[in-house]
Amino acid sequence: MSERLLFWGSGSIPCWKPMLVLAEKGIDYESKQISFSEKGHKGPEVTALNPRGQVPTFKDGETVICESNAICFWLESMYSKQGTELIPSDPKEKAKVLQKAFESAENMQTKAMQGVLYYYWRTKEEDRKEETIKENLDNCRNELTVWDKYLGECGHDFVAGKQFTLADVFFFPFLAWAWRMSLDFNKFPNIKKYFESVRERPSVKATWPPHWNEGEAQPEKMAYLKSL
Amino acid sequence: MSERLLFWGSGSIPCWKPMLVLAEKGIDYESKQISFSEKGHKGPEVTALNPRGQVPTFKDGETVICESNAICFWLESMYSKQGTELIPSDPKEKAKVLQKAFESAENMQTKAMQGVLYYYWRTKEEDRKEETIKENLDNCRNELTVWDKYLGECGHDFVAGKQFTLADVFFFPFLAWAWRMSLDFNKFPNIKKYFESVRERPSVKATWPPHWNEGEAQPEKMAYLKSL
Repeated sequence: MSERLLFWGSGSIPCWKPMLVLAEKGIDYESKQISFSEKGHKGPEVTALNPRGQVPTFKDGETVICESNAICFWLESMYSKQGTELIPSDPKEKAKVLQKAFESAENMQTKAMQGVLYYYWRTKEEDRKEETIKENLDNCRNELTVWDKYLGECGHDFVAGKQFTLADVFFFPFLAWAWRMSLDFNKFPNIKKYFESVRERPSVKATWPPHWNEGEAQPEKMAYLKSL
Repeated sequence: MSERLLFWGSGSIPCWKPMLVLAEKGIDYESKQISFSEKGHKGPEVTALNPRGQVPTFKDGETVICESNAICFWLESMYSKQGTELIPSDPKEKAKVLQKAFESAENMQTKAMQGVLYYYWRTKEEDRKEETIKENLDNCRNELTVWDKYLGECGHDFVAGKQFTLADVFFFPFLAWAWRMSLDFNKFPNIKKYFESVRERPSVKATWPPHWNEGEAQPEKMAYLKSL
């Protein structure tokens, strides 16, 4: 039994991020998958460590950390010499990686997820406004265009350069989630190339949300992003 | 003239965070305040460095970073020996600081700001729903109660322990903003004590949003949080 323990749920972007870090660095841990539909994240095992009842919830020896970004930074700092170096030591490279990591965390979340899909899921059909839907889709398209341009510039293989870094850990799960929601990647050729290459990475394959392999998303969850 | 340059706007939480780091570490920089109402963040000086036209936009020599969290991490890493140590090297302490930093960044933003005030500001009066307003206020109250409890436990002077850290850099500006929006701090006695102590800190006084000293917020901007 490992002294490290991670509670996680399938398809959660916050869970996927530390899982990618653990895989990239080759850190062994006991993996405890909870079921969101059975409210496993609100169960006694998780809430004993994380009173908010959320996943990821991570324990390394006596240390508990539950915020996805915090876990990523902590792991990279504690296991800096192990596996992939996710934050380069060179100042300029480090700046680039931190910039792109937080730029995706901020914009992909608010513009792609919250703006488009959360609005669709959380607003009753009769309350949805055409004007808001259009504005949200425009924002999402513009945001993806920004990243498509980034990935096209300088022939970058990864979000912040020639190496897989924390910026990819923060960016890729959003992209995979958009793919799951049936975004047409042909509209963003550089993103498509990046996605198809990075999805074959061993760390990504090893942590791919298991229920995504079992079938497509429910059609009603897909319709909105498909129209982008 | 310093080789460091920061574009910022008064009252912006993302701008305040790196300003606190710069002040705590005693790093000199050229300060360029832009006016949001005159759209200074969309002007040529800023967009030459940051095509998104947002502040903070920071330049250190040839290195440009524009995401507030990225700037904070980068500065702490590059100037680790200078001024206040914002991320402790002890693993347990480091975990606590990172946890609390991102816990506030995530929850204070979504539950206090977006949920309560953005809904009020961005939803036309006729479209506002009593049910949503109540739910948002409940979430905000619950979130502030969590932090009040945190601050009450173990007689902590700061969010993550006995020292001012990155967790305070991430948390305090949200709190000050809630204060500006007329939140009644008497409902959260530990938060009140913390706020009154930390607002006297030299770095906080030196970076206090200048226009907050010129007068109260407009009453229509305050009404909503006041009712919490």
